[in-house]
Amino acid sequence: MNTEKPRNLTMLCDFYELTMGNGYFLSGRRNRITYFDLFFRDVPDRGGFAICAGLEQVVRYLQSLHFEEEDLAYLRGKGLFSEEFLDYLRHFRFSGDVWAIPEGTPVFPREPLITVRAPAIEAQLIETFLLLTVNHQSMIATKANRITRAAEGRTVLEFGSRRAQGIDAAVVGARSAYIGGCKGTACALSDQVYGVPAGGTMAHAWVQMFDSQFEAFKTYCEIYPHNATLLVDTYNTLKSGVPDAIRAFDAVLKPRGITKCGIRLDSGDIAYLSREARKMLDAAGWTECQISASNSLDEYIIRDLFRQGAKLDLFGVGERLITSSTSPVFGGVYKLVAVEDEKGRVLPKIKISENVGKITNPHFKVPYRLFNRKTGKAEADYLCLYDESIDESKPLELFDPEATWKRKTFRDFRAVPLQERIFRKGELVYNLPTLPEIQARCAQQVDTLWDEVKRFDNPHNYYVDLSQKLWDIKNSLLNKR
Amino acid sequence: MNTEKPRNLTMLCDFYELTMGNGYFLSGRRNRITYFDLFFRDVPDRGGFAICAGLEQVVRYLQSLHFEEEDLAYLRGKGLFSEEFLDYLRHFRFSGDVWAIPEGTPVFPREPLITVRAPAIEAQLIETFLLLTVNHQSMIATKANRITRAAEGRTVLEFGSRRAQGIDAAVVGARSAYIGGCKGTACALSDQVYGVPAGGTMAHAWVQMFDSQFEAFKTYCEIYPHNATLLVDTYNTLKSGVPDAIRAFDAVLKPRGITKCGIRLDSGDIAYLSREARKMLDAAGWTECQISASNSLDEYIIRDLFRQGAKLDLFGVGERLITSSTSPVFGGVYKLVAVEDEKGRVLPKIKISENVGKITNPHFKVPYRLFNRKTGKAEADYLCLYDESIDESKPLELFDPEATWKRKTFRDFRAVPLQERIFRKGELVYNLPTLPEIQARCAQQVDTLWDEVKRFDNPHNYYVDLSQKLWDIKNSLLNKR
Repeated sequence: MNTEKPRNLTMLCDFYELTMGNGYFLSGRRNRITYFDLFFRDVPDRGGFAICAGLEQVVRYLQSLHFEEEDLAYLRGKGLFSEEFLDYLRHFRFSGDVWAIPEGTPVFPREPLITVRAPAIEAQLIETFLLLTVNHQSMIATKANRITRAAEGRTVLEFGSRRAQGIDAAVVGARSAYIGGCKGTACALSDQVYGVPAGGTMAHAWVQMFDSQFEAFKTYCEIYPHNATLLVDTYNTLKSGVPDAIRAFDAVLKPRGITKCGIRLDSGDIAYLSREARKMLDAAGWTECQISASNSLDEYIIRDLFRQGAKLDLFGVGERLITSSTSPVFGGVYKLVAVEDEKGRVLPKIKISENVGKITNPHFKVPYRLFNRKTGKAEADYLCLYDESIDESKPLELFDPEATWKRKTFRDFRAVPLQERIFRKGELVYNLPTLPEIQARCAQQVDTLWDEVKRFDNPHNYYVDLSQKLWDIKNSLLNKR
Repeated sequence: MNTEKPRNLTMLCDFYELTMGNGYFLSGRRNRITYFDLFFRDVPDRGGFAICAGLEQVVRYLQSLHFEEEDLAYLRGKGLFSEEFLDYLRHFRFSGDVWAIPEGTPVFPREPLITVRAPAIEAQLIETFLLLTVNHQSMIATKANRITRAAEGRTVLEFGSRRAQGIDAAVVGARSAYIGGCKGTACALSDQVYGVPAGGTMAHAWVQMFDSQFEAFKTYCEIYPHNATLLVDTYNTLKSGVPDAIRAFDAVLKPRGITKCGIRLDSGDIAYLSREARKMLDAAGWTECQISASNSLDEYIIRDLFRQGAKLDLFGVGERLITSSTSPVFGGVYKLVAVEDEKGRVLPKIKISENVGKITNPHFKVPYRLFNRKTGKAEADYLCLYDESIDESKPLELFDPEATWKRKTFRDFRAVPLQERIFRKGELVYNLPTLPEIQARCAQQVDTLWDEVKRFDNPHNYYVDLSQKLWDIKNSLLNKR
């Protein structure tokens, strides 16, 4: 069965979620309502923004959350948990509220991608899975977005399954890469499960399996005349690879009137080889033959290839995309930001740190994005308290939360809430978009960013500011300690 | 269900395995017997050796390999595959032979970790999964081995689920980390599925959930008097964290005569904080209180902490282990090395490359490890043809395959075949070891390596040499092209 069965991943949690859960239970805190924010502190690759992804898997997880008898037996065997708690887990379901920024949205450090309001044990238990999923998928979507932007409109395909960090890294990673802008994947299962278009033609073994390279190419063209992309570097790209490919195209495709075909370069100096191959193909009349490259590519190498005049139409990007190898950790965290007292009042909580950047933004917050009505560009994000509202008809003065003398007044702006309501009292109230819709959202939202924010190196620092009220509360909490 | 159900991962393959399979089928190559080697070219982190892992998952995969009707329907929908091929896939099972180096063994570049002998379509189809699994698990086992060696006998726990690259990266990653030398994991599911011991106590949220830190610590000690490791950095480690922990130990543990407990440092200057905390704990009589650290650790930082006199008993290593962040790609490849002709003769195949290091070692080979009988140390690995044997009673002269004038004669050695037979005609003929057995094998086999090979930086280059016959065949193939 390869459709996405809801796997029960309730036990995919750090063990301390369970010891804390038992502790909350035994110390009378099981019904304490808590607020947690999922946010990140640094953009991968020192980029200007990240692309958030993984919400669909979070939704499936929360919907299927439950403990089975064997889970309870395992926990009982640990000798740490009270029977009352285990019995509570037997009936455990997620009953909380969730707000989240839709997948495919550009996001910035310190703003809540997901906000959870739930009884303490529930909110705590889901920490590990939420982080794992959002961290992984956002990292890959972000990397894919960088790579596809470097490709300047050429097709980028995700080719990394064999170097992925495990099964889900391959299958779900291809999904995230698609969100970030890849047009397809090599991974058949990701096509089957998520609908990421899969494709591929041949490896070196195909060429080696025949007595001659020409025979290998000719046979392939005969079987797949409309899908003939030939791998030309098994022996010698320019001496025999490209010439044999042209002979095969001439022998099989030309008589059928087929003009679309391709070659793939997988080693050697891609810039040089692609220029020479282009000349040879054009001289032979195969001007529509696409040249693809697939040898340890990433956004930097693709950009360099263009600078060197490479003639490439398509990129197959493998290990450096599927592991985000230059920045293989997305450091999302999940922090308690508020609790409710018995009267339902929301009390802010803060985590102090010697490292100022690690201090959390307390309280139940609502993030907005401010768009300039004239240019349509995103100018800043703005975190308010849950009971604040923004009056678009008035100028809004923002200030840097760490350098409060830096101030800027916005006029003629649209303030768009970034989060959507996903769960209400444990019920899904959000229509999950399709994967192509998420990809389109990503492309469209990235277009609202200034080029300065999209630079690979030293991007402009996009503002994520706090409302005056939120800033005051944060500072009073800091001063209280 | 959280026991390891055999998931059918047949469709987890690069699409080109299927297009080539259909091509082999239609061009009369379906029964062509092929030999593929799985090997790698570079050790992660420029280390001296890798630890191979993942064989158990390869075995489960090969045993459960089959296409379901929905898989065939998906493939039919692609419009690329012949009905005859789809019908062949309906009855597809793995019928080949597999030899592999057992999990937990130190391995070196260019030697076959796995050798597959199977009909072309079968051998080709399994490429992606074998690479994905062995690449991922070997990478994590290798990193874990480095980190646990840096810890010099202290306990290292794997704490990285939340930053893992997907679900399997967390769950299977914890398994690989255990093979490499970690004593346990934070991941409950990995304990349940693979028996990797899971543990954990509290996050910052636990401390924040109480009106005071002391109350949080005291409550925890009361619930878990025998498992009281307190996180002391939520507010201020030395001013309030350690003092509150000592007060809680005094109040709850001392009256019960409990002397074992712990504190965890998760931020700040761990070297300094651990030294000061140790003094405070000792002065208060808590000499058995273990100090653990868990803030962005890896082998380099652990080594530095010791140099700075850190007083640490236990390390929780997260993102930098579970993603192998300094070297997040294990570059294993899977290459055709031979085919059989109609008479069953084994014909060597080679993949040429402009990059000399990328040229494959052709032919059906048997790798040996030569141990010095006096020291017990591993001296070199030696690749023979399948029909060669080694006479231990005679001196054996080895030479560097790239600098053949570099020669060394071995006497008084034991030649141990590195690979075991895993499958014979599709039947499993190997007793899979338990996970603790694999971990023990790893520790014991790493002990056979010279310290020079185990250095983190600039390790001695361990020899992987070819027999004269194999070298001759390789060179004649190179000269033929």
